[in-house]
Amino acid sequence: MKTTISKVSNFVGQEVTIGAWLANKRSSGKIAFLQLRDGTGFIQGVVVKEEVEEDVFAKARAITQETSLWVTGTVREDDRSPFGYELAVKNIEVIHESVDYPITPKEHGVEFLMDHRHLWLRSKRQHAIMKIRNEIIRSTYQFFNDNGFVKVDPPILTGTSAEGGSELFHTKYFDDDAYLSQSGQLYLEAAAMALGRVFSFGPTFRAEKSKTKRHLIEFWMIEPEAAFVEHDESLEIQEQYVSFIVQSVLKNCKLELNTLGRDLSKLENIKAPFPRITYDEAIEILKKKGINDIEWGEDFGAPHEVAIAEEFDKPVFITHYPAKIKAFYMKPDPKRPEVVLCADLIAPEGYGEIIGGSQRIDDLELMQKRYEEHHLTGGSYEWYLDLRKYGSVPHSGFGLGLERTVAWITGAEHVRETIPFPRLLNRLYP
Amino acid sequence: MKTTISKVSNFVGQEVTIGAWLANKRSSGKIAFLQLRDGTGFIQGVVVKEEVEEDVFAKARAITQETSLWVTGTVREDDRSPFGYELAVKNIEVIHESVDYPITPKEHGVEFLMDHRHLWLRSKRQHAIMKIRNEIIRSTYQFFNDNGFVKVDPPILTGTSAEGGSELFHTKYFDDDAYLSQSGQLYLEAAAMALGRVFSFGPTFRAEKSKTKRHLIEFWMIEPEAAFVEHDESLEIQEQYVSFIVQSVLKNCKLELNTLGRDLSKLENIKAPFPRITYDEAIEILKKKGINDIEWGEDFGAPHEVAIAEEFDKPVFITHYPAKIKAFYMKPDPKRPEVVLCADLIAPEGYGEIIGGSQRIDDLELMQKRYEEHHLTGGSYEWYLDLRKYGSVPHSGFGLGLERTVAWITGAEHVRETIPFPRLLNRLYP
Ligand SMILES: [Mg+2]
Ligand SMILES: [Mg+2]
Repeated sequence: MKTTISKVSNFVGQEVTIGAWLANKRSSGKIAFLQLRDGTGFIQGVVVKEEVEEDVFAKARAITQETSLWVTGTVREDDRSPFGYELAVKNIEVIHESVDYPITPKEHGVEFLMDHRHLWLRSKRQHAIMKIRNEIIRSTYQFFNDNGFVKVDPPILTGTSAEGGSELFHTKYFDDDAYLSQSGQLYLEAAAMALGRVFSFGPTFRAEKSKTKRHLIEFWMIEPEAAFVEHDESLEIQEQYVSFIVQSVLKNCKLELNTLGRDLSKLENIKAPFPRITYDEAIEILKKKGINDIEWGEDFGAPHEVAIAEEFDKPVFITHYPAKIKAFYMKPDPKRPEVVLCADLIAPEGYGEIIGGSQRIDDLELMQKRYEEHHLTGGSYEWYLDLRKYGSVPHSGFGLGLERTVAWITGAEHVRETIPFPRLLNRLYP
Repeated sequence: MKTTISKVSNFVGQEVTIGAWLANKRSSGKIAFLQLRDGTGFIQGVVVKEEVEEDVFAKARAITQETSLWVTGTVREDDRSPFGYELAVKNIEVIHESVDYPITPKEHGVEFLMDHRHLWLRSKRQHAIMKIRNEIIRSTYQFFNDNGFVKVDPPILTGTSAEGGSELFHTKYFDDDAYLSQSGQLYLEAAAMALGRVFSFGPTFRAEKSKTKRHLIEFWMIEPEAAFVEHDESLEIQEQYVSFIVQSVLKNCKLELNTLGRDLSKLENIKAPFPRITYDEAIEILKKKGINDIEWGEDFGAPHEVAIAEEFDKPVFITHYPAKIKAFYMKPDPKRPEVVLCADLIAPEGYGEIIGGSQRIDDLELMQKRYEEHHLTGGSYEWYLDLRKYGSVPHSGFGLGLERTVAWITGAEHVRETIPFPRLLNRLYP
């Protein structure tokens, strides 16, 4: 019976054949332990000299790292392994011999591993991170589908950008000029007026000369937007969503979290509701902690966010930022117009901001004023004003950065490990 | 009780309040029929003069198209409407009045509608198409998640492209040059060697000067890739997948299909297995139909594909194309090396090719030969050879174009209606 490692629990005591690669090996004169991987998982194959044909044991001792094989054997329960099963190998058929595989069990430098990212993905740690990334993606769709959000794909190629100019990638679009989108939000607002609750999930591009452990040039973002939803309800959706993905990973990726040595207690605690503090309170917290390099009206840097997050064991919402340091479309607090109805969600354990969101301006006159202030009038975003002309409604939305969220949940030090083929300041290969 | 139109079936006989827009209106001196939409659906609100406060009836008669409202009323079953429910309106609160909404119930030209795409999406027909697109996306994730495929996001920005040069969008990547990806396949092959079965689902870019009803400059593609899967098994995955999405739409989007007037019998028939013919047989079919403008060795154009599809009432696989008209990485048929182990899947009813796929070359020497033939040696795809050096295995994959599939399932004449904000040769706005 051909099967995969992920399904061996269905075949205890039975003989199965698995297409696999040799991840690692230990052997003596009498026994060989083969660490096998097939993409769905890792399992130990045990080859006992006395129990197999002579050439099978010889093959087991000779096969090299990353050689591809058909392995036939009997599935056994094995309490000592975290996986719970092993394979009593009876036969080995080499598909293709791997000679001098570059990534050996010894230590390699990061640049070397990044140059070999197409192979590095095969390692147990990278495999675990990619499986958790997949579970975050899967549970994201489940959450938004179950809550009546419609997937909407805003365009990547746009005529111009309403936010930031220097950080845009430019391309010729036949005789026109186009830019790679940094956010689909404005389009999603239009879609929310048509479909009620919508979300996008796609790649985003920032030509930012940042070289930090939290920045990628190309990253994936989830951007939900909902009509008739005001600021407070939006925060509830956000905390429900983040709780849901964390609990889904805990439930469905136990093995991978263990592979990564992640502290599960830290994740188990991530359940809605999340604490909420205002920007003003955040400034107070920083002052109390002796951090004085920030004044009311200035934006937080990563160190400020980390210092604030230290005070909480769940993600924390920082709300009501000064209007002048936030995006032009955010709705002023009616009770205090110098701040806006917005929130950043800061992950615990130093992983920084994972969500930015706000209620949007729904008043045409105010939006026209913002257009003048930001020199947007007459440009590629004239259509966006129409959303305030024709049946404007209160609405809110937010954006979650996938890779920062993967980094937090997996405990990865650097976002470069959280995406299959990272694009960094100095890296466009492989 | 605040609710949405999608949930009124839970509130029959009860009073609810819905945030909505006025899509359309008919009224006499005694009664007004309000076609209401809230993004989740459409419902008729009935305002009877004698049953409401005087100002409510006056408001109902006066409100203009696309005005946003809070509507309060009692949910009633209504057998005459395809939706099955209506609202006996008791109160109306205008949120924001819409003046001179540009898209009236009269006919508009396509360019006018495309210029107002951000508003056109609110119409019943566009709403239905977007909901079906969403269901195709949702069921795609369900299918691949349930079948052990891991979502992998290949990079959009790449150092060069192994296929086609002139159709690439170029951008400066700091001091380097980058191109927008036309396919993540090569990266997905690397990921399949790490994760077994993988799929991507993201935007794709072709700077192609085509102006047909089947071409978009920016479109979304699903690209699955599986290790240890040979050509025949790949075809089975493809037909299972396509059947699954069609049956999911039939099950979950009945109302939307009816809104579009789609012939359901044509879709009900779409169940695996699908017919399979070789390229040679396809040429024969064309000859028999009197279509003689094609010789063995030439690729099919859209008219050929349509003529072949006419012979079948399900999607049809055309397999074993001549190697020289297909991509460099496709595996030659061992029994007949002038053709490759590939298939295009042609949709019925004239919708053309929706899938292209193949088994991939797994032999290093043959791949090196192809690199020389295609001048790929020493370039940005050196890493791709490593997949044949270190534990090469048989593997196959395919790509499905989302928008063509949406066009087929919804019966849309032109792909421009199948994506929220289409990018066409002359269109980068809105
Ligand atoms: Mg921030
Ligand atoms: Mg074709």
